[in-house]
Amino acid sequence: MTSRGFKATARTSPEGRAVARTQTLIKGTNGIGTVRRTTLPGGLRIVTETLPSVRSATFGIWAHVGSRDETRSLGGATHYLEHLLFKGTARRSALDISAALDAVGGEMNAFTAKEYTCYYARVLDTDLPLAIDVVCDMLTGSLIREEDVDVERGAILEEIAMTEDDPGDCVHDLFAHTMFGDSPLGRPVLGTVDTVNALTADRIRRFYKKHYGPTHLVVACAGNIDHAKVVRQVRAAFEKAGALTDPQAVPVAPRDGRRVVRTAGRVELLGRKTEQAHLVLGMPGLARTDERRWALGVLNTALGGGMSSRLFQEIREKRGLAYSVYSYTSGFADCGLFGVYAGCRPSQVHDVLRICRDELDRVAENGLSDEEISRAIGQLQGSTVLGLEDTGALMNRIGKSELCWGEQISVDDMLARMAAVTPDEVREVARDILGQRPSLSVIGPLKDKQAAGLHAAVS
Amino acid sequence: MTSRGFKATARTSPEGRAVARTQTLIKGTNGIGTVRRTTLPGGLRIVTETLPSVRSATFGIWAHVGSRDETRSLGGATHYLEHLLFKGTARRSALDISAALDAVGGEMNAFTAKEYTCYYARVLDTDLPLAIDVVCDMLTGSLIREEDVDVERGAILEEIAMTEDDPGDCVHDLFAHTMFGDSPLGRPVLGTVDTVNALTADRIRRFYKKHYGPTHLVVACAGNIDHAKVVRQVRAAFEKAGALTDPQAVPVAPRDGRRVVRTAGRVELLGRKTEQAHLVLGMPGLARTDERRWALGVLNTALGGGMSSRLFQEIREKRGLAYSVYSYTSGFADCGLFGVYAGCRPSQVHDVLRICRDELDRVAENGLSDEEISRAIGQLQGSTVLGLEDTGALMNRIGKSELCWGEQISVDDMLARMAAVTPDEVREVARDILGQRPSLSVIGPLKDKQAAGLHAAVS
Repeated sequence: MTSRGFKATARTSPEGRAVARTQTLIKGTNGIGTVRRTTLPGGLRIVTETLPSVRSATFGIWAHVGSRDETRSLGGATHYLEHLLFKGTARRSALDISAALDAVGGEMNAFTAKEYTCYYARVLDTDLPLAIDVVCDMLTGSLIREEDVDVERGAILEEIAMTEDDPGDCVHDLFAHTMFGDSPLGRPVLGTVDTVNALTADRIRRFYKKHYGPTHLVVACAGNIDHAKVVRQVRAAFEKAGALTDPQAVPVAPRDGRRVVRTAGRVELLGRKTEQAHLVLGMPGLARTDERRWALGVLNTALGGGMSSRLFQEIREKRGLAYSVYSYTSGFADCGLFGVYAGCRPSQVHDVLRICRDELDRVAENGLSDEEISRAIGQLQGSTVLGLEDTGALMNRIGKSELCWGEQISVDDMLARMAAVTPDEVREVARDILGQRPSLSVIGPLKDKQAAGLHAAVS
Repeated sequence: MTSRGFKATARTSPEGRAVARTQTLIKGTNGIGTVRRTTLPGGLRIVTETLPSVRSATFGIWAHVGSRDETRSLGGATHYLEHLLFKGTARRSALDISAALDAVGGEMNAFTAKEYTCYYARVLDTDLPLAIDVVCDMLTGSLIREEDVDVERGAILEEIAMTEDDPGDCVHDLFAHTMFGDSPLGRPVLGTVDTVNALTADRIRRFYKKHYGPTHLVVACAGNIDHAKVVRQVRAAFEKAGALTDPQAVPVAPRDGRRVVRTAGRVELLGRKTEQAHLVLGMPGLARTDERRWALGVLNTALGGGMSSRLFQEIREKRGLAYSVYSYTSGFADCGLFGVYAGCRPSQVHDVLRICRDELDRVAENGLSDEEISRAIGQLQGSTVLGLEDTGALMNRIGKSELCWGEQISVDDMLARMAAVTPDEVREVARDILGQRPSLSVIGPLKDKQAAGLHAAVS
């Protein structure tokens, strides 16, 4: 780990021009995996990771804003804004934006989460200047025109309807509601039909202005790239847009919060005429900065992270009760969730829940076997190393690290942290997390009698 | 393009041992992209592609069997068998199989299509011998035990139920039925609840025996690999399993067929209480060997292959009528499909269909602009080159090429074929394909009056 980026302060050159400050955060091997950070005057951070063995690069910009920052009446504004950044700038129409990247076979997309928003493009290295130009233009110069807001409302309402038609996806939104209630973390990222219908161009423009200043952005770029060149291009693009005007500006610190989640024993059922019942059984997890997260990662992998995991073996392999069954963790600045998902026909719901609950209880009490732990560590390490070949995954890691932790960790350090997890640590985190009383979210066609039985799973 | 692999014949060494025959099909640059094929005595083909700049490898085995080879009562047998190959061999339990790959962070999976089945594992290059050992064991030594067949039936019925709950996926099965009717290509790969319930261990074992002989398999491996080593390991594994006994055996030729599809003007509606209506409007396309496929690829990309495509622009960007809208092609040995998918709320169905139909008609009549064509060619070329960094994508290409064409094409040749597509060729293929009268498949909550209006879209 290295020093925190948000401490960077502005300096000026002898000629009075504000000076960017560049640090090498991780020194790679043979030019692979070198991570550098430059903080521009104006407070814009740029992190890059070099991977000279590929011919591609992924360029992304992360904004320090997510649906968690919305009031109830702004529900869905972050995601709405993400859509609108593709609709046109002073220099480009929506078609110009998409045609530029399509013409070179690039992939351009964006995603909105509860604590951040990310825009990115993956291109051949020779097309990187184009990707930088387009993505920076979108971030700094979007017009958010009234007529675009109106047309895009339709596409977003369709996206909400599409998500509603995917109960295996939707049940995770329901679980957030079960655990966090009607609070920013408990509301859906997309917003609702009502909030989306109520949002105006004016409110979204204000939201854009408030959350997309350079101090709230992190630029991340990985692949066959040159740090200094990326910095020069990004700086030129932001300066051209007049977005780096305050030399004293300091990047915002990673988000912190005081949310404590103690939800237990709650059951929410959304009746739907689906073929399967879609279930999430879970409990409070860990904040993303919690040091126990490495042990929880091992626990999660062994419990429900692969075909050899406990839950897959018990529910699918030995009994054929589900096709899809897995566990997962999600970590926010100040809290987190641990959940088990399964999809099964309504007649199997009680068997599946009983087995899940039994396994959670058993592991809370006894921990895992040494063999399970060493296999889970191997699985996490192997997939981490396999992920190194994907410039998109690298860009994600360094961008999210900068925004959420304010620091970078090398792959060697990550592998070492995984290897250092002990059976005792796993037993402790299992007792702390899995030992809590769970809550349950279900979408499906359960009849009254079946629905009444759900409470047994969280008693 | 190179000579066809299935002409290889068996020879013997002076000592009487059958000799493998190896050819370099594509000579790469600096060791990158060299494609070699060895045909073992016993008729097993092994193709590899080298990518020494990565640290990973993907190993796959392709079987020359798909749901198209099923009689009505065998519906779903190919896919059922694919599941059962993970359930245990003489040497390994189901847990042994999954734990082996999980322990090194490998990704192991399989997929069943209408004309082939593929099993693969992506691992770090140092773990390749393990991947080869496990996958070869599954292919040659699976036990297909009665009790495993019974347990796995539950998981498959859950998979069918899960697919039913995803109307955006399901509508493609419906479209195959609309176009091909109750024939092998028109029936779902997963089978139905009834056919899956009726399949016995005995029938599946016979199916396995019939379709998984070495002449019906293609081994494909890509990444940081050594061709000779891969061949030695695969040969040892197959010989140990007693699977290479007939030195005269010759690999099966690529599939051919005589299916001619003339479906036109048909409408199928599956009523469901979904939020969106999910539509596919389409017509007969091209067989995968049709030389016009390069022009159709360009046409498909420009019409519905990206954010700058006609359909995306007209339906989502300008009008916000859908979130997801795209076109696609699928090619079989003797026929193919061209389709446009859109998901939209029921009230928009008629607008969306009218715009789709108008665009199809317009392009059938006028072709595309030079700008659209050159952008689509750039998009296809760029994404092809970007795909070269993924050993899974490379393995897929060489394995499928060997099985379906019996030949390999270099990336340079592919890029040249794309670049050579002319506006006249696009106009011709647009007239031939899009000029046909379309058919339509819909899943959604349409009322009688709306449903009655669907026929207008295909008149």
